[in-house]
Amino acid sequence: MTSSPAPIAAIILAAGMGTRMKSSRHKVLHPIAGKPMLRHLMDSLAELRPSRTVVVVGALKEQVEAEVTGRAEVAVQQPQLGTGHAVQQGETALAGFDGKILILYGDAPLVPAATMQRLLDALAGDVAVAVLGFRPADPGAYGRIIARDGAIAKMVEYKDASAAERAETLCNSGLMAVHSRDLFALLARVTNNNAAGEYYLPDIVGLALADGRACVVIETAADDVAGANSRAELAQLEAIFQRRRRAELMAAGVSMQAPETVFLCADTAIEADVTIEPFVVFGPGVRIASGTTIRAHSHVEGAVIGPDCEIGPFARLRPGTVLGSGVKIGNFVETKKAVLGSGAKANHLSYLGDATVGPKANIGAGTITCNYDGFFKYQTVIGAGAFIGSNSALVAPVSIGNGAIVGAGSTITGDVTADALAVARGRQDERPGWAARFRAIQTAKKGKQ
Amino acid sequence: MTSSPAPIAAIILAAGMGTRMKSSRHKVLHPIAGKPMLRHLMDSLAELRPSRTVVVVGALKEQVEAEVTGRAEVAVQQPQLGTGHAVQQGETALAGFDGKILILYGDAPLVPAATMQRLLDALAGDVAVAVLGFRPADPGAYGRIIARDGAIAKMVEYKDASAAERAETLCNSGLMAVHSRDLFALLARVTNNNAAGEYYLPDIVGLALADGRACVVIETAADDVAGANSRAELAQLEAIFQRRRRAELMAAGVSMQAPETVFLCADTAIEADVTIEPFVVFGPGVRIASGTTIRAHSHVEGAVIGPDCEIGPFARLRPGTVLGSGVKIGNFVETKKAVLGSGAKANHLSYLGDATVGPKANIGAGTITCNYDGFFKYQTVIGAGAFIGSNSALVAPVSIGNGAIVGAGSTITGDVTADALAVARGRQDERPGWAARFRAIQTAKKGKQ
Amino acid sequence: MTSSPAPIAAIILAAGMGTRMKSSRHKVLHPIAGKPMLRHLMDSLAELRPSRTVVVVGALKEQVEAEVTGRAEVAVQQPQLGTGHAVQQGETALAGFDGKILILYGDAPLVPAATMQRLLDALAGDVAVAVLGFRPADPGAYGRIIARDGAIAKMVEYKDASAAERAETLCNSGLMAVHSRDLFALLARVTNNNAAGEYYLPDIVGLALADGRACVVIETAADDVAGANSRAELAQLEAIFQRRRRAELMAAGVSMQAPETVFLCADTAIEADVTIEPFVVFGPGVRIASGTTIRAHSHVEGAVIGPDCEIGPFARLRPGTVLGSGVKIGNFVETKKAVLGSGAKANHLSYLGDATVGPKANIGAGTITCNYDGFFKYQTVIGAGAFIGSNSALVAPVSIGNGAIVGAGSTITGDVTADALAVARGRQDERPGWAARFRAIQTAKKGKQ
Repeated sequence: MTSSPAPIAAIILAAGMGTRMKSSRHKVLHPIAGKPMLRHLMDSLAELRPSRTVVVVGALKEQVEAEVTGRAEVAVQQPQLGTGHAVQQGETALAGFDGKILILYGDAPLVPAATMQRLLDALAGDVAVAVLGFRPADPGAYGRIIARDGAIAKMVEYKDASAAERAETLCNSGLMAVHSRDLFALLARVTNNNAAGEYYLPDIVGLALADGRACVVIETAADDVAGANSRAELAQLEAIFQRRRRAELMAAGVSMQAPETVFLCADTAIEADVTIEPFVVFGPGVRIASGTTIRAHSHVEGAVIGPDCEIGPFARLRPGTVLGSGVKIGNFVETKKAVLGSGAKANHLSYLGDATVGPKANIGAGTITCNYDGFFKYQTVIGAGAFIGSNSALVAPVSIGNGAIVGAGSTITGDVTADALAVARGRQDERPGWAARFRAIQTAKKGKQ
Repeated sequence: MTSSPAPIAAIILAAGMGTRMKSSRHKVLHPIAGKPMLRHLMDSLAELRPSRTVVVVGALKEQVEAEVTGRAEVAVQQPQLGTGHAVQQGETALAGFDGKILILYGDAPLVPAATMQRLLDALAGDVAVAVLGFRPADPGAYGRIIARDGAIAKMVEYKDASAAERAETLCNSGLMAVHSRDLFALLARVTNNNAAGEYYLPDIVGLALADGRACVVIETAADDVAGANSRAELAQLEAIFQRRRRAELMAAGVSMQAPETVFLCADTAIEADVTIEPFVVFGPGVRIASGTTIRAHSHVEGAVIGPDCEIGPFARLRPGTVLGSGVKIGNFVETKKAVLGSGAKANHLSYLGDATVGPKANIGAGTITCNYDGFFKYQTVIGAGAFIGSNSALVAPVSIGNGAIVGAGSTITGDVTADALAVARGRQDERPGWAARFRAIQTAKKGKQ
Repeated sequence: MTSSPAPIAAIILAAGMGTRMKSSRHKVLHPIAGKPMLRHLMDSLAELRPSRTVVVVGALKEQVEAEVTGRAEVAVQQPQLGTGHAVQQGETALAGFDGKILILYGDAPLVPAATMQRLLDALAGDVAVAVLGFRPADPGAYGRIIARDGAIAKMVEYKDASAAERAETLCNSGLMAVHSRDLFALLARVTNNNAAGEYYLPDIVGLALADGRACVVIETAADDVAGANSRAELAQLEAIFQRRRRAELMAAGVSMQAPETVFLCADTAIEADVTIEPFVVFGPGVRIASGTTIRAHSHVEGAVIGPDCEIGPFARLRPGTVLGSGVKIGNFVETKKAVLGSGAKANHLSYLGDATVGPKANIGAGTITCNYDGFFKYQTVIGAGAFIGSNSALVAPVSIGNGAIVGAGSTITGDVTADALAVARGRQDERPGWAARFRAIQTAKKGKQ
């Protein structure tokens, strides 16, 4: 993405809290793929290297300010008198800025950087306003754009539109690019002579056209400008993001048998020739190297996974998991702050927390690292090539030497020397016929019930 | 929902068993979201407070009677000579009833109460029959309704329809409202002069029109009248129900990252500001309080979950689970008849069955309540603030006192005093060099294979 | 499926490796529902009992040859000069064959045998070429077929098509049937006078028409001829296959609450009156008998499951699992090379590997068969009616007699006699007040941090 040569600024509207979300969290901070909506938008915007960014805040402004601090200036809109009024609040923060201004919406966060750039590029020559239009499946009550070959003749709110205008399917997304020398001058002339008594941003198009200036519309896909005012719409944005990201990964050589059942985070990084089976969820902070398979029903967050590993089915990797090459983590196994060397295996029903496991170590089924005493967490260190027998408990802090063996069923409380066998379990004792007698007694009891 | 002032009765047709289901269970008893189809319909109908309900049964009638007993009268249709004949069987049961009669179908169970009410309301003035129409994506072989501004001119079976009539997209759902003084009089005039030799209910519309009476059509969404005659169609009804219910919950403030992967029961009750991650299945009898998160890959049935809990991923809550506030149930943990006090935690690989766990108790990884001896189930009681070390087995009946600690790897068979430490495990024993010798022997054996 | 009376041969084009897959594996060997694409196609073709099959290979030909060896002859296309040239490579292998030749594509593997048969049947009388056409949702750049009542007037590449021809929605799938006496004669006349310098197979239609011969088009659904050149398209083929197979199973009496969340293998065999809950994945080699329920979140591969079993939720059955009737495998339980007799139960958190479990045996929660010593695998034999207490480790090779009981928390290293009780665990020891003192110390430490 090359930035346009003229300087760019952006005004992001994020004043309305979104009461339909029924949430104490500001609408633009709800996450998509684990990342707040507003951050999605600002990350895409950052690809254009804007020299200035202003976020217009209002309701719950402290929440939004905390999110954007260090990345953008903030302007407060109070009271909230419409979109035109909101954009005007950016004027002070942009004092002295001379260039193209992009107007974005915090609750429409999936606009690709390339689309933003197309909109800016359309603001050339005599063009006063470039508007981003789209054709939704159901145009409903969106404002319509009457245009010919990209030149806007009129923009009209749905409620003011004639039947012929309503039949037009090109709708106004609200996103615009306007030069700084035009934007605030036009906004100053917008009035609130309408039923809601609000200052509408799109009115600047009518004013520019009346001045004999050209206004243009750039079309984009409806998904690019989709917005969220409710949790159902938020789920739709999530679906759009997931579809896009899965497609990108597949195009880069990642295999997914059922991509619609794989949920990625915004930062999930997966190399080519990785296979992801159905029903896999990724949390933040995951990196997966080539040749690895993430089997079905797995849950992975905060994990760095080396090449040629086999994870799952039913594996749960938690933050701080680092796996070397060829590691196997099997069913009903949980890892947390666990570093496993190459070729290590934990195939069944285990918990490895606060642990270091050497290369080629084998962790038997049912192994538990007892890392917590109710107050502090402690480390377990398992040496290279060690073999932990099934159903063992390793009471941390504890160290199992290289090549050592822990007998099945042991509770290990002291360090084990390299190449030693450690066993810590009761001796087997048999009472002949006891089970038969017990059954007779219990059967009789059951009979009496 | 206010009931209409005139008394209401309903006739529900449920005689055909549905051979395409390939099931020994009657079609109308197959579940949607864990509740039999017929019960969905009767629950919606109940919102209108009908004074009389008659269910017309035939095949497998004992099964259907068992379902509706106490909620409706039953009329037997034997033999089955068509829908008109079926409705006629309700006449005796409705003897003396004077009011509006709603005709419903046990295999079309998702008609909203509001839609039933609209149909009843349309039966006003001189109207003889109000018919519920819909416009399916593919009108196929449905009977067509020829109408203008809601006034029916003609109803025609697809096979008898002209090309012009087949081009009409408004179809007959079969649902009707007719006044009791008209219904049976009209039905008595219906003949079976047709290829199938059946008495068709829709024929009453033609008879009423011939009498100079008005008949009207009310339109509804295709989903509202969808029916199931096969397991594939049953799955489609399930999908309709799930979509509706997820949307209701999201509108009420429940967050779902991927609503299409959350499966609810008809009675699942979830408060606002609950978050449901992907791949969660709810069985019957679940209530979840505000602030709780149900993480991915969880399975919850018969559980009452307090506020601010964190459940999963990979948690399985079974019937009889009652959780206080701020409880954590982590991965690969199963609870059954388990009552956990506020702030209690069971984070990994545990089974808590027939157990009471005090507030702030910590259940270590791999803890198992041994609640069954092959004949009877026994209780485990864990006190407030107790700490159960990892990989412990608690052999019920057993009681762990408040603030007591159980050492990791213990099998506890006797009660533990409050604030005591109990340990029950073998002593650790080490054989130096044993593992190295073992490896040498086994490696040699492998080499010989 | 009756094969047509005339002998049939097939030429399957599989020379292009599919660079857009970004894979070191040949495109036609990527799996759909666990079976390579090419094998799907050849299995459908086999229903027509062709007397000869030639697979035209090129890139990565060793991989493709290994797949088809014993089922088809191989012809090498080197260099690759177009589809016409590819088909020509089959001429030598088909020397002496006199009959109908079907031309198929290894990367379009979901053509039903019945569709192949319809195409062959269309090659009757004077017809020179029968072409399989389809109407995609978006005809895009597909070659168009200009036809009237099935008689082809012209076939035209998209780039050469007039606007009127582009408006035609009937597209060329590439699949054809041609008689052996026509095919190679026509191909010999095809030239490479085009921009790509390639020999195009569809050109034989133009040549045949110019000879005054009839060419016909048979229409089929777009899904039947869908092809995969990328991992995203491969996922689409997978989705088509899964939809088809789920529908077949439901029509045969299998219940699925949410069929879109059930992933089958090509060989998954499920009887009527089996219920599959949401989020279930089947690997290869599964057979399930009537009356069984596979509950949610289960993963099943290489398992033969008897009637009336209850599997899951969260069960993982691995290859070599054989279950009798009425077996229960519950949550977080893994089986591998495990044969369980009728009525046996393993309800929670267990691993049964290399094990034989007798009828009605009860495997307690947390039971682990310790089947591996790092070098070899060993057998565990559990007798009929035995009761394995919770959290037990059974160190194989080991045998538990019929009706024996293993006490909870035991590590069993020696055989247990029938009807005996075996216990192998530490004695419980209590230190009064220890926990209270420990808490005081740790709390003080935390305070100092």
